[in-house]
Amino acid sequence: MGSPFSILANGGVTSAKGYKAAGVAAGIKNGKKEKRDVALLVSDVPAAAAGVYTTNAVQAAPLLVTKETVSQNGLLQAVIVNAGNANACTGEQGMKDARRMQELTAEALQIKAEHVAVASTGVIGVLMPMDRVSAGIAEAGKMVSLEGGSDFSEAILTTDLVKKEIAVQLEIDGQAVTIGGAAKGSGMIHPNMATMLGFITTDAKIGQTDLQELLRQVTTRTFNRITVDGDTSTNDMVIVLANGKAKNQTLSPSHPAWSQFVEAFEHVALYLAKSIARDGEGATRLVVAEVTGARSESDAEMAAKTIVGSSLVKTAVFGADANWGRLMMAVGKSGAFVDPNQVEIWIGSVKVAENGMGLDFDEEAATKELQQDPVVFRINLNVGQGKATAYGCDLTYEYVKINGSYRT
Amino acid sequence: MGSPFSILANGGVTSAKGYKAAGVAAGIKNGKKEKRDVALLVSDVPAAAAGVYTTNAVQAAPLLVTKETVSQNGLLQAVIVNAGNANACTGEQGMKDARRMQELTAEALQIKAEHVAVASTGVIGVLMPMDRVSAGIAEAGKMVSLEGGSDFSEAILTTDLVKKEIAVQLEIDGQAVTIGGAAKGSGMIHPNMATMLGFITTDAKIGQTDLQELLRQVTTRTFNRITVDGDTSTNDMVIVLANGKAKNQTLSPSHPAWSQFVEAFEHVALYLAKSIARDGEGATRLVVAEVTGARSESDAEMAAKTIVGSSLVKTAVFGADANWGRLMMAVGKSGAFVDPNQVEIWIGSVKVAENGMGLDFDEEAATKELQQDPVVFRINLNVGQGKATAYGCDLTYEYVKINGSYRT
Repeated sequence: MGSPFSILANGGVTSAKGYKAAGVAAGIKNGKKEKRDVALLVSDVPAAAAGVYTTNAVQAAPLLVTKETVSQNGLLQAVIVNAGNANACTGEQGMKDARRMQELTAEALQIKAEHVAVASTGVIGVLMPMDRVSAGIAEAGKMVSLEGGSDFSEAILTTDLVKKEIAVQLEIDGQAVTIGGAAKGSGMIHPNMATMLGFITTDAKIGQTDLQELLRQVTTRTFNRITVDGDTSTNDMVIVLANGKAKNQTLSPSHPAWSQFVEAFEHVALYLAKSIARDGEGATRLVVAEVTGARSESDAEMAAKTIVGSSLVKTAVFGADANWGRLMMAVGKSGAFVDPNQVEIWIGSVKVAENGMGLDFDEEAATKELQQDPVVFRINLNVGQGKATAYGCDLTYEYVKINGSYRT
Repeated sequence: MGSPFSILANGGVTSAKGYKAAGVAAGIKNGKKEKRDVALLVSDVPAAAAGVYTTNAVQAAPLLVTKETVSQNGLLQAVIVNAGNANACTGEQGMKDARRMQELTAEALQIKAEHVAVASTGVIGVLMPMDRVSAGIAEAGKMVSLEGGSDFSEAILTTDLVKKEIAVQLEIDGQAVTIGGAAKGSGMIHPNMATMLGFITTDAKIGQTDLQELLRQVTTRTFNRITVDGDTSTNDMVIVLANGKAKNQTLSPSHPAWSQFVEAFEHVALYLAKSIARDGEGATRLVVAEVTGARSESDAEMAAKTIVGSSLVKTAVFGADANWGRLMMAVGKSGAFVDPNQVEIWIGSVKVAENGMGLDFDEEAATKELQQDPVVFRINLNVGQGKATAYGCDLTYEYVKINGSYRT
């Protein structure tokens, strides 16, 4: 049995029916229009909307505005995003600026302001250059097109090295249903924060409540399973729009195709999440930790996330050092129930530890596994049925360089 | 009013009455006697003993043996330590080897095996070279002397750059009471783990139960307030011996000099803890986060530890980048109650944020503060009376180099 969906070539946020997008250069960072930094996404009609947001107690103005907007209306028709300024720690003026971005977008597109989500990423604690933002929004409003997905995915980036976009398609009720997405990951230009933004668009017809619950559940297994450096931004958010243009019967958990839709949706989210981890600041490789045999899924998740979050594990991957003791240390400190004498560890296909003790393994083969991308660690705790996978990246000189650099 | 204690020049674990020590080279790592790697501490008489141990679920054999020994007897007369091999993840043979180290030490010193603590730090998952360990213990047993504190503090090190030792003295009941200590910090030779070992000796007379409670409380404010990279070793422990040779009236919380004794004891523990943080792998500077105005001490501690534990804060210190947004991010993600609009931040003496927003501060002055050692961040959350200080270090290229290097 194959996958219930297919992956579209060059897919992105405009692959689903009824979406247009644009990405333009507005010079938000320093007035120089060197790169695209205003991104605009618009649906032909108001779409059911859902969002998940950072758990950081310090939350940026655009995040607060978007959270309020989505929770009050459950509908979005457009998303305006800027890179270069996070509009965080900017007080009352920051809130006014975020609301002004909603209004400006609504004016440019002739839609309702309460149907516009706002997201920002960039320097913290600096007021938004609203003249340039305003000009950028106006220009983006004129530029939106069916082919604009790629420009959109480029304009949301900061120090990311590559665009992160994807679209998948499946048939539901005889209709082609498409789910597309774009994301930005870790790395800010100056005062850096590892902001994560994700935008998913679908033409599926689905109720707002089910969409929100779907996003919440899928985020738990995807965006919340990645780490670059353990820090949590003030601006992190994932927004999904579902505009119903595919004309399927309304999706809900009782729809016969629900599980296929969930699988396709999760594929989009996981692809974007893994892309973010692999493109972490200074990273050279994706690191995957698959934990099985835990007492519960939550135990497995703690162990897997602790492994990919450990600086000692991350540097060992960078150095391709088959240092399984650090994996033991990480599962031990994770909070998961661990019987040290039961733990089995594989680096790729090389089994390195059993019953909590090292095996006489082939060091050369293990080193080769550590030079692959991705690097896969498999840990069986052998105390239950819980399993979970987490994603991270290696810790390199370049990470220190990027994040230690002067803001000037 | 001055300090109730004085700091002794060149003080260490043999400064208090009735303690001898030694540190010898036994070639534990690779057979080459290049550095001292077996350390032995002995009290003339059995001493009241207390210990605190790693919370990691994976615990090394010597730690399990020592924990059992201290909890069963409450007395120690000697501590045997080796560097170069952690005796962790070594199964039943590891337990036998740790117990054998107890016996060998007891034989060498003609004392009881159940009065010997064992600590190890070094490579994980490799069986102890017991022939060399045995020869090292025998030699150390012959070498113990009143002047051996410095050799002891050297022999417990791995990749630490400097010895960490101190002694303080105060008068109690007309008697000179001395408290000395030595510690090792982060950095292992090969499969690295940031093992922390601390040994405190005093000639004070104090009951075992009060000593254990004192150590527990003081550790909370000292050794548990430091972080190098957030990882927790399988071998971490702090052991204290109190042999009563100072002939003071038995110390307890009802003794009039109790608070002075606690203050002196805490000074020793804090000095050792800060020395460990400053000498973290690859570190160039001690980082101090002082959080005030939290809802509780526990909130303040979470915020302070999150700051010194944040990779983004640590790299900003390395780069002397006055990136206060990262401090906001760290307190926000810490779990402490934060009202973003109330937060005040100082970098050294430079106030950089107020009401959660950036001030127009002197960048040059802030950069200078970030080039000091220590670098001090002060954060007032302005929501209560809780306060706490945590200690860490910067994150440098050298950290990545040390920990990314091949074990070969």
